[in-house]
Amino acid sequence: MPLNEGDPVVIWIDPKRAYISKLERGKRLDTDKGAIFYDNLIGLEYGSSLTLQTGAKAYLLKPTIQDLYSKGLKRPSQVLYPKDIGYILTTLSLNQVKTVIEAGTGSGFLTISLALSLSENAKIYTYDVREDMQKVAKFNANVLGVQDKIVFKLKDIREGIDEKEADAIFLDMPDPWNAIPKLYEPLKPSSTIIVFVPTVNQIEKTYFAMKNSGIIDIHVEELILREYQVKENAVRPRNIGIMHTGFIIRGRKSI
Amino acid sequence: MPLNEGDPVVIWIDPKRAYISKLERGKRLDTDKGAIFYDNLIGLEYGSSLTLQTGAKAYLLKPTIQDLYSKGLKRPSQVLYPKDIGYILTTLSLNQVKTVIEAGTGSGFLTISLALSLSENAKIYTYDVREDMQKVAKFNANVLGVQDKIVFKLKDIREGIDEKEADAIFLDMPDPWNAIPKLYEPLKPSSTIIVFVPTVNQIEKTYFAMKNSGIIDIHVEELILREYQVKENAVRPRNIGIMHTGFIIRGRKSI
Amino acid sequence: MPLNEGDPVVIWIDPKRAYISKLERGKRLDTDKGAIFYDNLIGLEYGSSLTLQTGAKAYLLKPTIQDLYSKGLKRPSQVLYPKDIGYILTTLSLNQVKTVIEAGTGSGFLTISLALSLSENAKIYTYDVREDMQKVAKFNANVLGVQDKIVFKLKDIREGIDEKEADAIFLDMPDPWNAIPKLYEPLKPSSTIIVFVPTVNQIEKTYFAMKNSGIIDIHVEELILREYQVKENAVRPRNIGIMHTGFIIRGRKSI
Amino acid sequence: MPLNEGDPVVIWIDPKRAYISKLERGKRLDTDKGAIFYDNLIGLEYGSSLTLQTGAKAYLLKPTIQDLYSKGLKRPSQVLYPKDIGYILTTLSLNQVKTVIEAGTGSGFLTISLALSLSENAKIYTYDVREDMQKVAKFNANVLGVQDKIVFKLKDIREGIDEKEADAIFLDMPDPWNAIPKLYEPLKPSSTIIVFVPTVNQIEKTYFAMKNSGIIDIHVEELILREYQVKENAVRPRNIGIMHTGFIIRGRKSI
Repeated sequence: MPLNEGDPVVIWIDPKRAYISKLERGKRLDTDKGAIFYDNLIGLEYGSSLTLQTGAKAYLLKPTIQDLYSKGLKRPSQVLYPKDIGYILTTLSLNQVKTVIEAGTGSGFLTISLALSLSENAKIYTYDVREDMQKVAKFNANVLGVQDKIVFKLKDIREGIDEKEADAIFLDMPDPWNAIPKLYEPLKPSSTIIVFVPTVNQIEKTYFAMKNSGIIDIHVEELILREYQVKENAVRPRNIGIMHTGFIIRGRKSI
Repeated sequence: MPLNEGDPVVIWIDPKRAYISKLERGKRLDTDKGAIFYDNLIGLEYGSSLTLQTGAKAYLLKPTIQDLYSKGLKRPSQVLYPKDIGYILTTLSLNQVKTVIEAGTGSGFLTISLALSLSENAKIYTYDVREDMQKVAKFNANVLGVQDKIVFKLKDIREGIDEKEADAIFLDMPDPWNAIPKLYEPLKPSSTIIVFVPTVNQIEKTYFAMKNSGIIDIHVEELILREYQVKENAVRPRNIGIMHTGFIIRGRKSI
Repeated sequence: MPLNEGDPVVIWIDPKRAYISKLERGKRLDTDKGAIFYDNLIGLEYGSSLTLQTGAKAYLLKPTIQDLYSKGLKRPSQVLYPKDIGYILTTLSLNQVKTVIEAGTGSGFLTISLALSLSENAKIYTYDVREDMQKVAKFNANVLGVQDKIVFKLKDIREGIDEKEADAIFLDMPDPWNAIPKLYEPLKPSSTIIVFVPTVNQIEKTYFAMKNSGIIDIHVEELILREYQVKENAVRPRNIGIMHTGFIIRGRKSI
Repeated sequence: MPLNEGDPVVIWIDPKRAYISKLERGKRLDTDKGAIFYDNLIGLEYGSSLTLQTGAKAYLLKPTIQDLYSKGLKRPSQVLYPKDIGYILTTLSLNQVKTVIEAGTGSGFLTISLALSLSENAKIYTYDVREDMQKVAKFNANVLGVQDKIVFKLKDIREGIDEKEADAIFLDMPDPWNAIPKLYEPLKPSSTIIVFVPTVNQIEKTYFAMKNSGIIDIHVEELILREYQVKENAVRPRNIGIMHTGFIIRGRKSI
């Protein structure tokens, strides 16, 4: 299928030169490998490439969760990484999920990831008290073309949510223990609540807030991603990498 | 919604006593915490619990990818773990994926995970040369009730596949480099190929088989999951854990 | 040099059959690979081997810190592992260290490791309130033949120490913050204090107890050891391993 | 004991401003926190501090292995890190080691670490084919004042060594398997040989070169160091860190 104006695209030259954006007539992307005129991209297909002035090739790719970390989206706040988002996805039977609640919105990377994963008629309700953050997330969702699956709520989730039945709840906020008791009621029985926290100090409070609310099967976990570099006869883990993003605390509601 | 005969269910007593199965009249599950008669479960809802003879509570939960590792499914071969499956899911725009190719079938844990994640009209085509393995995977898929989304192919994927257009290809086999060249053609442009290998020796061959076939944006990665135990005023990583499952090698097709 | 009665020796058959003990006339070691009569070992050299009834070979090795984890020593309490002990050694200029303070004694593994590492005229003063523990540690030190370098003190280190000048202080106890203020004075300027704690909850209290006492250059670290198994054309990290022992908090005294 | 001209010292302002050097009259160190005149340091003690023009304090510390990574030493090549050096130390009964062989010399960090650890009458014989490297190592050893314990040999270790009896051998070179067979003879029975390699490709060749030479109790291991940052009520692993330095392969000689 040929690409149209408005389609999301990753322009991939090499791992350090990957740009995510929406196809718009008249727009251009300048890189040190050459300029790319979006008018020339319309009508091409995902997977095709064009040769730049310097001889470098630029490939057009269809965005996935992995591409959210390319250049082009806004990132004013700490974001969840694919390793963490993927693990969150395994706690859901994705194709049956219709209503997901999330707070805070942040840059919208988890919001968008869920929108890319959930089936057509699912909706993500994302709460944040900061309007500026939600603007960022809206911008990002719009680049990916998933804005229709997201409902932005400018509201403090610690005061509860408007939705009556949630298939899953995700919290990435400084004091999740202040929100959990209010969220127990609307979470559907057997459904998952997941909390993401960066410090060890937040683990215990979150764990007991879940447990005391009636959440069962609680796990506290952390994922470390290790990247390898491959050269002929020289395969090795990369020397420097991300050692820590946060801890994932997950459990399920019992009646 | 009340549970019916045939519904998949996780009977969860505690982390070491979690059993996944299909609700069948007349069946019973014996545990050291008491017996559970399936006839009593029909009509209950996911999330509800019953009290066993010993006073222990058994909760009925709706299965997710995380539950595949409970007791009740068959595991004759090494399986992918949720951490790896979740990461695989981040390389796809799940809601747009229709056709997925996989080899080998193994115990069917990745097959089932994809079936739980992909939208209604998607299909997973899973190749294996061992009929006994596919029997195991069929049994497991049937427990989860996802058999209709899976097409089992008793065939050596190194000889190519029957499907003309694949949205994604996953290989978990000893010599993926012998299959990759044949699979390049049916993989849709911009779509993902992922290989999972347990040894470091397999990394380089797989990487260059991908690269030489025209795959771009290749990454070699590994995920380490760390579990934490939480007691009051005593939070710590668990002493013993799984240090290694395998390496994930992923890339995308360029035209 | 031929082995004499009283010499410490590791009898190594394979990684799972390694026994550390003191050579004693008349003693025998029974293993499923055959019996070993110590009388036959006296006069042999470190590195030599004998063939057992089953054909298996038993090697005589000179003990190192790594061997403390062989069978033969007593381990009633959690012990420090070589990875942690080694890191502790890097914080000292070992050959100049004369007086080391340690609490608690525990099984004496760190005590013995220091005795194996420090030069002839150095002494380790090890404090513990439990006499049973110190008996265990004495037994272990005696097996290794290092008892002369160790002074056992049955005393609560939280009440201070008798020694006036310490080149290093190591604490492996539940509440190190209750001992640190008392230990600052006898620690020689520029010398190291190291604390080992298993839980995340203990990190912050220890850190600030050090900082508030005048300790500088404080680091909180943790070491993860990954073992690899090697077969021809199949090298891989071991699947199961030790994910956590404890956190190391180290700093130096300023005047 | 007051510091004299020629003494090694670490001038520590904060973790990013730590400088290792030899006290020399007339020398000065310029930092963005203020200048330090070495003439003022002579006569002070380790652990004491001076206040700089900006009000920052500079502490004088006695160098340990941990300090080799401060500024002030030369590092033209990859170096072993304290975590790896410490682990190497646990494979020796340090206080009994007299003769250690090492190749390549590199920046001399392992050489110096051994010199700081081994007792007075021990010697380290360090082999390298590159004279420029040995110059760097000599410079570094001189800063630490340990040059008398080191014998520099400008020679290819693959052709064998001059020493008849080695208590330990360490190899950090591209093709250790070409040196191992020649080094088996001079290694004392029961003594340790350790090889450090950065790539996974080197593991298998090294392992089998050891095994085929008669080395027993071979282990392949890797250490990952995780640093934590501590703020009040906010303890967490650092986000970015060193994910990989190399693999340690160790074994012992049997007769």
